[in-house]
Amino acid sequence: MEGFSFDSLFELLEQGNLKQLREELIDLNVVDIAEFLETTPIDKLLLIFRILPKSLAAEVFAYLETDNQAKIVNSITDTELSYLVEELYVDDAVDFLEEVPASVVRRVLASATPQTREVINRVLKYPENSAGSVMTTEMVEFHNRYTVREAIAQIRRTGLDKETIYTCYVINDHRKLKGVLPLRRLLLAEEDTLIKDIMVEDEQVISVNTHDDQEQVADMARKYDLLSVPVVDNENRLVGIITIDDIVDIIEEENTEDLEKMALMTPSEETYLKTGVFTHAKSRILWLMILMVSSTLTEQIINGFENSLAMFVGLTACIPMLMGTGGNAGNQTSTLIIRGLALGEVTVKDYFRVLWKEVRVSLICGGALAVGNFARMWLLAQWGIQPVSGVTAILVVCIAMMLGVVVAKCIGCTLPIAVKLIHLDPALMAGPMITTIVDGISLVIYFAVARMLLM
Amino acid sequence: MEGFSFDSLFELLEQGNLKQLREELIDLNVVDIAEFLETTPIDKLLLIFRILPKSLAAEVFAYLETDNQAKIVNSITDTELSYLVEELYVDDAVDFLEEVPASVVRRVLASATPQTREVINRVLKYPENSAGSVMTTEMVEFHNRYTVREAIAQIRRTGLDKETIYTCYVINDHRKLKGVLPLRRLLLAEEDTLIKDIMVEDEQVISVNTHDDQEQVADMARKYDLLSVPVVDNENRLVGIITIDDIVDIIEEENTEDLEKMALMTPSEETYLKTGVFTHAKSRILWLMILMVSSTLTEQIINGFENSLAMFVGLTACIPMLMGTGGNAGNQTSTLIIRGLALGEVTVKDYFRVLWKEVRVSLICGGALAVGNFARMWLLAQWGIQPVSGVTAILVVCIAMMLGVVVAKCIGCTLPIAVKLIHLDPALMAGPMITTIVDGISLVIYFAVARMLLM
Repeated sequence: MEGFSFDSLFELLEQGNLKQLREELIDLNVVDIAEFLETTPIDKLLLIFRILPKSLAAEVFAYLETDNQAKIVNSITDTELSYLVEELYVDDAVDFLEEVPASVVRRVLASATPQTREVINRVLKYPENSAGSVMTTEMVEFHNRYTVREAIAQIRRTGLDKETIYTCYVINDHRKLKGVLPLRRLLLAEEDTLIKDIMVEDEQVISVNTHDDQEQVADMARKYDLLSVPVVDNENRLVGIITIDDIVDIIEEENTEDLEKMALMTPSEETYLKTGVFTHAKSRILWLMILMVSSTLTEQIINGFENSLAMFVGLTACIPMLMGTGGNAGNQTSTLIIRGLALGEVTVKDYFRVLWKEVRVSLICGGALAVGNFARMWLLAQWGIQPVSGVTAILVVCIAMMLGVVVAKCIGCTLPIAVKLIHLDPALMAGPMITTIVDGISLVIYFAVARMLLM
Repeated sequence: MEGFSFDSLFELLEQGNLKQLREELIDLNVVDIAEFLETTPIDKLLLIFRILPKSLAAEVFAYLETDNQAKIVNSITDTELSYLVEELYVDDAVDFLEEVPASVVRRVLASATPQTREVINRVLKYPENSAGSVMTTEMVEFHNRYTVREAIAQIRRTGLDKETIYTCYVINDHRKLKGVLPLRRLLLAEEDTLIKDIMVEDEQVISVNTHDDQEQVADMARKYDLLSVPVVDNENRLVGIITIDDIVDIIEEENTEDLEKMALMTPSEETYLKTGVFTHAKSRILWLMILMVSSTLTEQIINGFENSLAMFVGLTACIPMLMGTGGNAGNQTSTLIIRGLALGEVTVKDYFRVLWKEVRVSLICGGALAVGNFARMWLLAQWGIQPVSGVTAILVVCIAMMLGVVVAKCIGCTLPIAVKLIHLDPALMAGPMITTIVDGISLVIYFAVARMLLM
């Protein structure tokens, strides 16, 4: 199915034919209903939200943007709000409450039943991006004395309110997590079997602690192909689960965060268009300033060679090309290593293997580039449009380029791994950072080679 | 659960206590068994693989690296191979067959039953990275005349061989996809209900075509929170499904590919360490060469200002800093826009909103940087270590920097969107490309400002 056109819905909305609009909306996927609502002006959005069947409205609510959610909460009655809060899964309620003003939070919590309020408050208290803060508490849990028949009966009775029924969890009298029971096993087993005889137990149970980072949850789910990850407290008591749809969102969020760090920006949780101009500026200015100040070094290097440069102005013209090539070469390597570290395909222990590989790759790349550059400059010199003339001067540039590429690639693999070793985020050692460091080194190499061959 | 130590397993292996080793392995998760096998030498790997229970061995096989899979296939008998092929899910078999030499493929297909062979051959024919090529054909499908009782009975009978039973698909006499039935609905319904009365139908059925790109499958699953996506042919006949565990892998693969393109490398399917030196070099050299050659332009620009530079050598020293700042500023913007486009948070239609935002952000960032730079250069000049002295010269650098940042950010948002508009991959317009383009422009601005104020 390709995209979805809302034209007929807009027409009905314009005609004020709400009855027909409601009929059409009910037939749609909740995600599409939410998307349609997002495109309507706020007064229409509130209107349509209220004509939806109550339980469908609650489902749609979870897919709306925070600002529209807040407007809906402000426009509905306490009774409606109370129903909405009870219908929402705890993780969706918490997602919303984490973003809205305290006054809205107070009103929402006041509308909840004491039990729901207690649960929401507990989840709200976990540190940001921890497993506890993204989990939901609506999971299927059985006592380990249950039979298959009892387990299936319980699912039929309570399954509608659970975020997922496809992976069930088995606990003992003290709520300790003893096993995992995929619904498939349950359904294919004999009715009188005890669930503790068919559950996955001991070493095979994968779980995370409430305080683990959400990134670890995603790594776990990806590695073990899980549909949901159980979250336990320090005493191994089951307190919640994180389902695969949320894990997919976490994966994309972490990937975005890595990319933003790699471009040296403070990661933001909001989408590009929703982020204000000042927030954008604030998240970008710090590193731009740091890199700008640190290029004082390259200035001093060029400054130190002032006299040589005045003699050979042609040498100056090649500086951007040499720096650019070094930066690009280092950027390629650091990107590969940062990604490899993030996916666990490269570890700190692999450093010497990586370095040895990069040395060889950079010799090939650097060599090819040097030859290419020689051809380029020689041709340009023939046509009389090259600042550097004379084979020696061209050779200086080519040798400097080759050495620069080798050094850049070595730095490009060393820094992310070094940073990982001291438990910082390797993503910081991406393009812009590598480029700034490589710039100075490229210059030193260039001038050293020039000095040896030309003076 | 944190990582997993294989020490005790290695000990058993060393003692040659295979019986005990087998017992311990059986208790592990298949993913961990595969990981353990990967760390043993190939002769031990083959040995352990053969002592595992046959069906467990088949499961483990799917998680091994291709080269080890090929070695196993070469070492087992035709009967064992035949069992293995039938046990594997079609998508895992195809993943493996796509990577191994033709001789191995022939032997595997010869060992398969005619039916399995036909299915594998069909899936192998779909273009790389298409939905058809990553799907599996082991899905639960019901005829739309079934009752809930009949449907559950069929799942109990055949569920063990299906890749997932949690989303079932409803087809008519012509195998056309008529509806989707989450197992949850089935399990919570009355036994005599007709499944066509409880299935999700019409507009709500999300499916992809066999020839759609795998990226579209991932987008669909992410947007609609699906556990599996049905794949249909041009006549809307159900031919396979793609499950969420494979979709998670697709998402990570697409993210890696985007990153590699952003660093201007030809994307590779293998992990960093598994890729050979020449393949690494080949995937990196093309763009390095193109960017190197294109910096001929910056050389010519500097060349054109040769005389002015000879007069004011100090100006030269600031070139790297100005270019670097412009490149970093443009890189930040293009990263955000490329990511926004990939996640669908930014579309081509948003261009003018984006541009207007970037103009304002860049004025703030550029202004702050100019002020910061003025302070830096003025201080350095006081200490007598700055090449450019005199307030006018410093002002030239600051004004050029401010203008450079504004232009860089405008280019950084324009190029990815422009490239998207002509249906190319925006990821190509990332850091290195933007930097190369911005370099020349920064220079032109710098020299223009210098000419106006200094000469």
